[in-house]
Amino acid sequence: MRPAIAEVGYVDRGLTVGWSDGSDPATFHHIWLRDNCACSLCRHPQTWERTLDTHSLDLDVRPRDVRHDDQALHVLWSDGHDSTFPAAWLHEHRYGVSDADADLPVQVPWDASLQNALPQIDHGDVMRDGGGLARFVEQVWTHGVSFIRGAPVTDEALAVLARRVGHLRETNFGVDWHVVAVIEPNNVAFTSLELQLHTDLPNRESPPGFQFLHCLVAEAPGGDSTLVDGFWVAEQIRRDDPAAFELLITVPVPYRFHDAEHDLRWNAPVIGLGSKGELREVRYHTALTAPLDVAPGLVEPLYRAMRVFAGWCRSTTARVTAHLEPGDVMVFHNRRVLHGRTAFDPSGGQRHLHGVYVDVDEWASRLRMLRRGRGTGGV
Amino acid sequence: MRPAIAEVGYVDRGLTVGWSDGSDPATFHHIWLRDNCACSLCRHPQTWERTLDTHSLDLDVRPRDVRHDDQALHVLWSDGHDSTFPAAWLHEHRYGVSDADADLPVQVPWDASLQNALPQIDHGDVMRDGGGLARFVEQVWTHGVSFIRGAPVTDEALAVLARRVGHLRETNFGVDWHVVAVIEPNNVAFTSLELQLHTDLPNRESPPGFQFLHCLVAEAPGGDSTLVDGFWVAEQIRRDDPAAFELLITVPVPYRFHDAEHDLRWNAPVIGLGSKGELREVRYHTALTAPLDVAPGLVEPLYRAMRVFAGWCRSTTARVTAHLEPGDVMVFHNRRVLHGRTAFDPSGGQRHLHGVYVDVDEWASRLRMLRRGRGTGGV
Repeated sequence: MRPAIAEVGYVDRGLTVGWSDGSDPATFHHIWLRDNCACSLCRHPQTWERTLDTHSLDLDVRPRDVRHDDQALHVLWSDGHDSTFPAAWLHEHRYGVSDADADLPVQVPWDASLQNALPQIDHGDVMRDGGGLARFVEQVWTHGVSFIRGAPVTDEALAVLARRVGHLRETNFGVDWHVVAVIEPNNVAFTSLELQLHTDLPNRESPPGFQFLHCLVAEAPGGDSTLVDGFWVAEQIRRDDPAAFELLITVPVPYRFHDAEHDLRWNAPVIGLGSKGELREVRYHTALTAPLDVAPGLVEPLYRAMRVFAGWCRSTTARVTAHLEPGDVMVFHNRRVLHGRTAFDPSGGQRHLHGVYVDVDEWASRLRMLRRGRGTGGV
Repeated sequence: MRPAIAEVGYVDRGLTVGWSDGSDPATFHHIWLRDNCACSLCRHPQTWERTLDTHSLDLDVRPRDVRHDDQALHVLWSDGHDSTFPAAWLHEHRYGVSDADADLPVQVPWDASLQNALPQIDHGDVMRDGGGLARFVEQVWTHGVSFIRGAPVTDEALAVLARRVGHLRETNFGVDWHVVAVIEPNNVAFTSLELQLHTDLPNRESPPGFQFLHCLVAEAPGGDSTLVDGFWVAEQIRRDDPAAFELLITVPVPYRFHDAEHDLRWNAPVIGLGSKGELREVRYHTALTAPLDVAPGLVEPLYRAMRVFAGWCRSTTARVTAHLEPGDVMVFHNRRVLHGRTAFDPSGGQRHLHGVYVDVDEWASRLRMLRRGRGTGGV
C-alpha cells in the first residue's frame, strides 16, 4: 500500500506533499514537476520517452493553480500547461529514496561459508517458465554465482540457455569460446596451468558482466574451479585497512591484452565505487596487469594494497571451490566474483568448458521485467 | 631514436637511470622492476601474459648486482632471479609519461568551423587496404566523425564495412537496426519527429562507442543530420562556468529506456572525466532522462547546468549539419559527438538509415595495430 496524499503546501520554488501514513513530507521543485509531466503532449504515448523539450521550459515556471485529492496532484502551470501526478508516482520518486534500485534485490556478500549452500538450480527449471528463470536470474544477482545442473552436453545448449536472459556479449574471443588446452594459446586460460583468481577482461573498458561456463568434458585430473566474492573482499579491506582501500578505489591500474590481431588496454581502479560509495565492480588480473604508471610515491603503497587485495582473495576464509561435471553450468558475476582453477593434467584426459558472457545491464533489465511478471525469457 | 642508458644509480628502494640525451633521469622501484621482468619464466612466451605471480614476490626484493650497457639494464635479484630491461622499454615506461596513450593520436575538439572541412573518405579507400582503413580509423578517432562516400546501397554493405574495424556491438535494438518511421515505435528515432542533439543509449552502463549510419534512401524532405562535438562543449563550460562544470562531472543523471521487453537504466554524470581530468565521455539525451534524484539543493542548479550544456550544443557556434545521400555513411564517436536530425515529411517519400555500433576499445585497438602496420582489417 502506497501512502495517499494528505496535504499539499507551498515552499520557495516548489511544492510539499504530506502523506496519509504520516511519513516525512516530500518537496518537489516546480521545474522538476513541470519537466516530469507525463501527459501525451510531454511523453510519446508509444515510446514513453520525453517529447517535451526540457530546454524549452522556463526555469522559473510556477503553478498558477494547485489542486489535489488523495490519489493525485493537479497543477496548472504559468506556461498554460496542465499536469497530473499520481500519488504513487510522487511517493516513488521522492528525492533520495531511489539510491538503491528498488526493482532489484540486494547483493549479499559471502565468504567461504557459502560452500555449504552453493546456489544451484535445475536446467529444466530455468528453461521451463518465467518462474524458474526468475529464480535463477535473482540467485545470480544476489550471490553473484549459481550452478545450473543437468544441462544437455551439447555445443548448442549454452547459447540457448544464456539467451533466456539477454543477448550474448561478443568480445575479442568471439561470441562464445572454448576453454581447452591448446598448443599455441593467446591467453593463459587456454593452457593447462593453474589460473590465479581473477576477473575476465579487465583490459576492456566494460568488462563482460556475467559469465557462463558450461562443462562439456571433465576427464583430466585437477582443474577444480575456485570462486571468491570480490565485494566481500572489498568490504574487509574497507573495514581493516582504509589506506589500502583508498588506493584501490582511486588509483587506476593499467590492464592490457595483446595478440597478433588486438591490443586492448584499459586503466581503472581495482575497486570501482558508485557515486554513493556502493560497490560497483572489481577488476583484478595479475597476468594482464601492465607496468604501473603512478606517482613515484604511490608505487610501493599500491603494490602493498594490491597484495592486501590478493591476500584476502587467496585466504581460505574467502574461497569456495567446485568440480564441474559434464552438464554443469557455472554462472557468475564477472565484475564482482573472481574465479580461478587449479592446474589440470592434460595427459589424463580432456577438459572442455564452453563459455559466453551476458552484460550487467541486460541482466538487471531481465530481472526487473521478471519481477513484475513480464519478459519471461526466450528473447 | 630512443635515448640510450648513460648511467645507473641507486636510490632508496629503487634504481635511477640517466639517459644519453640528457633528459631527466628516471626512477624505478625494485618491486616494480622485478614484477615487470619479461623473461620466459615470468611471461608466457606465447600469450605475453605475466605468469610470474606478483603475489609471490618479496615486497622488499632488492638487487644483488646491477650492470648496464647503453642498450640494456641487467639486474641479479636477491631472490636469485636475473632480469634484463631494454633501454627503449625503460624509457617508454618511465612513471608519468604514458598519461596519454602514445599509440593513439590526440582527439582534436572542433566547433562549427568544421563544416568547411568535414572529414571524409571514399568507401573504396577504406575497403582496399590497410592504409585507407588506417586513415579512416584515425580520422574518426581524431575528430570524432567522418563521412564515407560511395558505399554500395545494399543491406549487406554496412556490416562488411564496420567489421573492418571490429566486431559489432549488439544492443537491445539488435546487432544492426533500421532508422525508418514506423507506426508503433519503441523509440522516438523510429518516428519522423525532430531529434534533439543527443548521445545514443546513455541508459546503458557502457553506451555504444562508434556509430555507423548508412543512408539507403533519402526521398523524404527534411531529415538533415546535425552533429556537435561534446568534448568541445565541455571545454567551453570548463572555461566559462566552473560551477556548472562541477555539477556536470559529479552528479549522476539517471537515464532509462523501457519497452515491452526491456527496462534498461543507468546513472552517470553528463560529462565523464578520466583520472587525470581528461574528457572521457558525454551522455546527454533529454528524451531518456529519468526523474532526477539528487539532494534538494542540487535540483535547480543541475537543471541550470544541463541547460548550459544543451545551450552550447544548440548554438550555431557548435553545430555542423549534413544531408546524407544514398551511399553516404556517417560515422561518429557516440560518447563524444552528439547527433540529431531535423524532422522529415514521410508523406514526401522514404528515409531509411541502416545502423551499427563498434565499441571504443575495439576502435582503439584497431588503430594501435594499424599504426604499427599490423591488423589490416577484414577480421
